Amino acid sequence: MARGAVEESIHRDIPLSAAMGTQVVVATPESVVLAAPLAPNVNHRATAFGGSVAALAMLAGWTLLDARLHETAIRAHTVVQAGDVRFLAPAKASLEAKAFAPEDEAWRRFLATLERWGRARLRLRVEVRSDGELVASLDAAYVSLTDGE
Amino acid sequence: MARGAVEESIHRDIPLSAAMGTQVVVATPESVVLAAPLAPNVNHRATAFGGSVAALAMLAGWTLLDARLHETAIRAHTVVQAGDVRFLAPAKASLEAKAFAPEDEAWRRFLATLERWGRARLRLRVEVRSDGELVASLDAAYVSLTDGE
Repeated sequence: MARGAVEESIHRDIPLSAAMGTQVVVATPESVVLAAPLAPNVNHRATAFGGSVAALAMLAGWTLLDARLHETAIRAHTVVQAGDVRFLAPAKASLEAKAFAPEDEAWRRFLATLERWGRARLRLRVEVRSDGELVASLDAAYVSLTDGE
Repeated sequence: MARGAVEESIHRDIPLSAAMGTQVVVATPESVVLAAPLAPNVNHRATAFGGSVAALAMLAGWTLLDARLHETAIRAHTVVQAGDVRFLAPAKASLEAKAFAPEDEAWRRFLATLERWGRARLRLRVEVRSDGELVASLDAAYVSLTDGE
């Protein structure tokens, strides 16, 4: 995946990601890392707004799943279904949200379900760091639907 | 609470809320309703980006708690600690996030703990509607700390 193309596509499709200053740092099938500067995402305490942290994390997970689907023959779109976010420390600098690839077995089951039923659900873990410190974690569930569903 | 003053304060302190087009529709100690148009919060499916929905909901809960604290003699600031968000339906129009006041007993316990220990935790429920339909719910935990802590 070309990072520039992924970034352009995110900014075009989700204008809030551009307002947040989102940059694509890593975009491979193994992980996606999205970064965002503090200034457009700051809160009243001069730390990152929790809503920005959650949004960046959800977008990182979505980008990873979407990118992995693009490597298959399946044409599908993905939406976030649920998210469980924990804020562990205040983020005093720019944000980096890293989405981790699912286990191979979970991915195989997901693809098989999607091919058979036109719909499948996948849980992904995302960690958000600031200045190297873990500031938030997200466990999110995404649902993919084959196009035409 | 003057809605205009609350809106101005949110936009100034949390610039992303201005980028989202956040408006304060209701701001009373019983509930806070924040609205946002679809356009700045849209996704690749022409529905609301989940990150925007989550951010608006977290902000509604935070605004309610902050406003309730302002009615007490306690000087404290509040941050979001955790959020459990469920996306129930795609939002095809503008968003309205309504934060519900806590039960009286939970509020009394929260204030007593805050006064005694300088720190207290409160759970709040937020519902997000679009065109009257419930599109998302958030159960969030906020932590308030008396100033100086």
